[in-house]
Amino acid sequence: MAKVAMLGAGFIGDFYTFSMHGQRNRDKVCVIYSRDEARGKAFAAKHGIPRWTVSMKEAVNDPEVEVVMIGLPNNLHLEAVRLAAEAGKAVFCTKPLGRNAMEAKEMLDLVEKAGVVHGYMEDLVYTPKTIKALKSVEGGALGEVIWARSRETHPGPHSDWFWTKDVSGGGVLLDMGCHCIEISRNYIGKDIKPVEVMCWADTLVKPIEAEDNALGWVKYENGAIGQFEVSWSFRGGMDLRDEVMGTEGTIWVNNFLRTGFEMFTAGGKKGYVAEKAETEKGWLFPVGDEVVELGYTDMLTDMFNAFDNKTLPKETFYDGYIVNEIMDACYRSAKSGKWEAVELKEWRGREKTEKINALKDYDAEHLLVKEERMPDGTVKLILKNKNSGKISQRITG
Amino acid sequence: MAKVAMLGAGFIGDFYTFSMHGQRNRDKVCVIYSRDEARGKAFAAKHGIPRWTVSMKEAVNDPEVEVVMIGLPNNLHLEAVRLAAEAGKAVFCTKPLGRNAMEAKEMLDLVEKAGVVHGYMEDLVYTPKTIKALKSVEGGALGEVIWARSRETHPGPHSDWFWTKDVSGGGVLLDMGCHCIEISRNYIGKDIKPVEVMCWADTLVKPIEAEDNALGWVKYENGAIGQFEVSWSFRGGMDLRDEVMGTEGTIWVNNFLRTGFEMFTAGGKKGYVAEKAETEKGWLFPVGDEVVELGYTDMLTDMFNAFDNKTLPKETFYDGYIVNEIMDACYRSAKSGKWEAVELKEWRGREKTEKINALKDYDAEHLLVKEERMPDGTVKLILKNKNSGKISQRITG
Amino acid sequence: MAKVAMLGAGFIGDFYTFSMHGQRNRDKVCVIYSRDEARGKAFAAKHGIPRWTVSMKEAVNDPEVEVVMIGLPNNLHLEAVRLAAEAGKAVFCTKPLGRNAMEAKEMLDLVEKAGVVHGYMEDLVYTPKTIKALKSVEGGALGEVIWARSRETHPGPHSDWFWTKDVSGGGVLLDMGCHCIEISRNYIGKDIKPVEVMCWADTLVKPIEAEDNALGWVKYENGAIGQFEVSWSFRGGMDLRDEVMGTEGTIWVNNFLRTGFEMFTAGGKKGYVAEKAETEKGWLFPVGDEVVELGYTDMLTDMFNAFDNKTLPKETFYDGYIVNEIMDACYRSAKSGKWEAVELKEWRGREKTEKINALKDYDAEHLLVKEERMPDGTVKLILKNKNSGKISQRITG
Amino acid sequence: MAKVAMLGAGFIGDFYTFSMHGQRNRDKVCVIYSRDEARGKAFAAKHGIPRWTVSMKEAVNDPEVEVVMIGLPNNLHLEAVRLAAEAGKAVFCTKPLGRNAMEAKEMLDLVEKAGVVHGYMEDLVYTPKTIKALKSVEGGALGEVIWARSRETHPGPHSDWFWTKDVSGGGVLLDMGCHCIEISRNYIGKDIKPVEVMCWADTLVKPIEAEDNALGWVKYENGAIGQFEVSWSFRGGMDLRDEVMGTEGTIWVNNFLRTGFEMFTAGGKKGYVAEKAETEKGWLFPVGDEVVELGYTDMLTDMFNAFDNKTLPKETFYDGYIVNEIMDACYRSAKSGKWEAVELKEWRGREKTEKINALKDYDAEHLLVKEERMPDGTVKLILKNKNSGKISQRITG
Repeated sequence: MAKVAMLGAGFIGDFYTFSMHGQRNRDKVCVIYSRDEARGKAFAAKHGIPRWTVSMKEAVNDPEVEVVMIGLPNNLHLEAVRLAAEAGKAVFCTKPLGRNAMEAKEMLDLVEKAGVVHGYMEDLVYTPKTIKALKSVEGGALGEVIWARSRETHPGPHSDWFWTKDVSGGGVLLDMGCHCIEISRNYIGKDIKPVEVMCWADTLVKPIEAEDNALGWVKYENGAIGQFEVSWSFRGGMDLRDEVMGTEGTIWVNNFLRTGFEMFTAGGKKGYVAEKAETEKGWLFPVGDEVVELGYTDMLTDMFNAFDNKTLPKETFYDGYIVNEIMDACYRSAKSGKWEAVELKEWRGREKTEKINALKDYDAEHLLVKEERMPDGTVKLILKNKNSGKISQRITG
Repeated sequence: MAKVAMLGAGFIGDFYTFSMHGQRNRDKVCVIYSRDEARGKAFAAKHGIPRWTVSMKEAVNDPEVEVVMIGLPNNLHLEAVRLAAEAGKAVFCTKPLGRNAMEAKEMLDLVEKAGVVHGYMEDLVYTPKTIKALKSVEGGALGEVIWARSRETHPGPHSDWFWTKDVSGGGVLLDMGCHCIEISRNYIGKDIKPVEVMCWADTLVKPIEAEDNALGWVKYENGAIGQFEVSWSFRGGMDLRDEVMGTEGTIWVNNFLRTGFEMFTAGGKKGYVAEKAETEKGWLFPVGDEVVELGYTDMLTDMFNAFDNKTLPKETFYDGYIVNEIMDACYRSAKSGKWEAVELKEWRGREKTEKINALKDYDAEHLLVKEERMPDGTVKLILKNKNSGKISQRITG
Repeated sequence: MAKVAMLGAGFIGDFYTFSMHGQRNRDKVCVIYSRDEARGKAFAAKHGIPRWTVSMKEAVNDPEVEVVMIGLPNNLHLEAVRLAAEAGKAVFCTKPLGRNAMEAKEMLDLVEKAGVVHGYMEDLVYTPKTIKALKSVEGGALGEVIWARSRETHPGPHSDWFWTKDVSGGGVLLDMGCHCIEISRNYIGKDIKPVEVMCWADTLVKPIEAEDNALGWVKYENGAIGQFEVSWSFRGGMDLRDEVMGTEGTIWVNNFLRTGFEMFTAGGKKGYVAEKAETEKGWLFPVGDEVVELGYTDMLTDMFNAFDNKTLPKETFYDGYIVNEIMDACYRSAKSGKWEAVELKEWRGREKTEKINALKDYDAEHLLVKEERMPDGTVKLILKNKNSGKISQRITG
Repeated sequence: MAKVAMLGAGFIGDFYTFSMHGQRNRDKVCVIYSRDEARGKAFAAKHGIPRWTVSMKEAVNDPEVEVVMIGLPNNLHLEAVRLAAEAGKAVFCTKPLGRNAMEAKEMLDLVEKAGVVHGYMEDLVYTPKTIKALKSVEGGALGEVIWARSRETHPGPHSDWFWTKDVSGGGVLLDMGCHCIEISRNYIGKDIKPVEVMCWADTLVKPIEAEDNALGWVKYENGAIGQFEVSWSFRGGMDLRDEVMGTEGTIWVNNFLRTGFEMFTAGGKKGYVAEKAETEKGWLFPVGDEVVELGYTDMLTDMFNAFDNKTLPKETFYDGYIVNEIMDACYRSAKSGKWEAVELKEWRGREKTEKINALKDYDAEHLLVKEERMPDGTVKLILKNKNSGKISQRITG
């Protein structure tokens, strides 16, 4: 049973605490920090938390506290990490790690120097579907992954600070691109180096300084592409989908909007349907258990198991740093209009990965381009002569 | 933290234990009973359980044990319940409660006389989707429920004893009809009396004595119909779907085969896809976290919270008994070819429920039959004159 | 190119004409009959039809007319068929053929005595998906069909006459049960005799005399069950789904509500979404081309090809008669509460069909009950000893 | 009734002819041209075509022929168009129009100088779903379209010539990108100028010279993005999906792989499931009527109606030329790694389109950033002060 200081009484702090205190779980929040006294008090009452404070330092240094969880606006992550590191306590930080790679690198250095257990709370690589999908990919079900698309779009975040660039550090690319980038990185392989990025970002719909829509491609050393699509102007709820193409297979994951639960109501249902649903009547698509489906449950299990075992969870500050570097490159690319290199100050993965190679011999003289069963039952082969390079077709029984 | 004796080291005992020991849960199995020494030992090793035994009595009376969980073949439920009641320990029993209503009634009497906490482990009313759907129904999102279809079909159970009638007590109707009946009962209202049933059951595909396919309708006192469809000869995996029609809305729940997770693999994936998947290549439809999606997680939370609080969970032996009575009536109907009364020795719900009434006045003289917006933008009304009974149509702006 | 008299200027006449005059089709309506002069005129203008009349006889005997299409209320089918038969013209009649089997039988006798081409316009066995599905079933893709569920539910018909029992002849069972019954009959085999039926019908929601909800099972001589579900009180649009279980496979067809076309609109879309959609904003599920998806296109092709070739289409008045007999038995069963025999005055199919038999030998001594690959890669067999009847399990590599 | 010379007896010629001769259609192929005598003869026999020839010129100049349809490899389009223009006959050409914009421009000039009816056979903007979706977009259901994704991926084309770059002119970008680009252009607005493109293209899986995978963004003058994704190495069938985001709504179209038709077969179905399905057993996803669902039916209707009325169809050689220019820019971008301008020699749309503007006033002083109903029933507003630019949040009843 771990004792936790929760930093932040907003939407995400609520989700984390709800998840931690749910089911028959054994970990507990023992102090809540909020800048706002009333909110902190209300949060403590709602979740049965014994203590609340308006001092971040006090929360972190609470003698009972073993683990610090950061659910604060982006501009406060670094300060919170520094306090935790100084206190020598385990620290789990929400996404994105920093507002930029410089901040993220500093946080990474702080926790590593302090030798504390640290986790990067990227919940979406922990959704039960993603966990199982990644296991299938690792088991070879898809062959080599050549492309992974991750999409997160909804009608915009809940709190004003997200929309204010100097607090948040950026727009939708920073807020949700971080999810998508880390998801694709997991599918393609976390030890394969991201080498360059191409990004488009624009402010098309909302009256804000930062971008409200962004698209991007992250190219990995083996030639695979991680594609992200993020928007704060999507209509219809929250769309969280991943698609993976491999040389031998395909994976499609829908984490939120179409999960086998459909409801039509004429009268208007009272109460909470789902995060970022847009309507209260007509056809609705609730999710079963949000904290499970969004990955909070499995993420916290991994984080707290790491704390118990004094190891590191699957997602660490190092991963958060890599994601920040990729996003920094994306912002550069959105400005320059060309591919920009990912400038990693620190790389702990494979040093050199060969390009994907899925060529198949048909016989001594030919490579197989394609094999297809035709409507009449015959099999049609497309072959390439290894010497001449000539492509031909052949029908077999 | 509850200490549990698990009775039964088969498929279902495995699922229960896996669920209880998963995530950051605090309850633990401390002794496993299996008739087979080798299986018990292996089970204990796999799940990190300190003790195993071939004596059911020894397991139940283990001094550390507070809760007895029954995951045994149907013919052993009564004996296990008797032991637990005699020991004065909480007891949670897998479905169906008895092989018939007589057995179930005896179990109900035993636990109530002993005054122990008891739970009927009907996991499928605890799937996260079902929990949320039931809440919507209770909140009025569907108006009055008039029909609930529950379907469970797959290619047949895992162990030989299910297929052996004197051990199991029946075929697919008993094995899976119990799920569907209790799901519909929850949607329609657990305090509304089930009055009669119509059932078809046949042995169409399998070389067994008991039925391998069954269909049924349970009529409730308010006129609503609970429909079940069960099969041990379905091809394509495990189909677990519920559909609910209300006067004001509709709910469709797919718990297993189409939940937003799709995979194509050319090569043949090694390893476990999902309970009762039939193929290992081509298009596969895994579920995210089976123990969550099948309701085990939320069911155990409710059961163990009840144990902690010395209350009763949502599903008790009384519910199990009601389901057994309904199934007994189904078997009578399948034989007689007509509607058969449900003969409840014990009814604790509403004594008399009026028939569903959803009539709507249009004006002083007319009832509204239907209102529809037409392609040309007008609204077409179908009205019934309250005096003459004549039905007419009217176009309005 | 066929010249057609369209009888009826209502919703269904509109659909038929729209379908016939659509794309690059070559058949044409040359006269429209409507009881109401204004409607007939407007219909003619809308569809470019040269002549209109308020005399059914005049329309049928129009010298240019070769084919009579009946899109009239149920109580006028017999009269229209008599006129067409007397005129010696081909006649295609909408569903249901009669208000009861007696009417239907008379119509069948009339066209057969007159020797005219006749078609029963059961569009839903002609949806492109159904056509392909039936072909797969005939090709053996499902083994033996043991169960076919057909469901049609929506918020109720468009015109007042449907709701008036002496005009329509019945409620939702007659109006839409006829679709479902013929769909199941096609899947199970049109030459296999329907022997008895069980039906529930009730008036739960609407202020009408006839039933607004009905459920039924049609038992065929080989033991297969055709299940229908019909409702005039469904909320959420029009639900047209079929599910087929065979000993070797499964088919699921969704003809209308989930066909791969999803739209969310915040503003409220002007114009026609789809037949019987209930909302104009939020999530909507339009169909592509309604006249194709509902089977009108392929049905008319079959009907007019039959006319050209002086043969009969796939669905004839004989089929309409069989469906009416099944529905008559359903009404008897709904009243008696027991299985009722289908009393066919005329049966042209197979005289005696054996019960479905899907038993599989495992070896000389055993039948195979089930074979399953387990999570650990082994294969688990459930076997039945042919002599002792004992069921056992066996693990193989 | 139009009389057609079909040029090309391959896969696409077969589809065109099958579609034209299907249902009760009135247009007919009267001569088939194939380079290969045996194929031409067989094609004529199969489709009931009176004449066949190995001379393209003879086919085009056949005196009965009114319309020339081109279903030839890309390198023969220009020659065929020239012959048709010289003969003064209507000409419909398959996609892509040219191997590059230069060829396409020459074809456009040829038909316009000759004054013949011409059509660009881009079937996928004619799928019934796309037609209805475009109508909704035009009606304002989505507000302003800001992004349209079109995806076409499958395991590769049927014939050797596609894989041979000097015949085809390019790889998957040319072969299928042309579909996606024209689909997005229709959603965003055909009169809005495409200004620049970003493209990634690589040869990851197949042993060929041309690209087997490509991704791209086409930026339109109003800031909207048309995104395409094409692959010849997708596993699992043919994936044809479009997704559209507007300021007020969303459209998702699935034309092929998930259209409400699902089949599981254990035994292995004989015969044709669907174009580019990869498996014959397990879960299969057939389409209903391929020629309808892929747009051939509605496309030919538009083309032949244009011929009858001496107008132009919705898709003309001009559209084909625009698409080729966009693709030429894509190839430049794939090489240069930066956005490349679309260099239109001819632009007939709007001269200048303003940037998308969806700003909404909340009151005199504030713009509305977001409005959301919270779980507790309150409404949360995110507002931007017009003067200070400060963003704040506000809770209202």
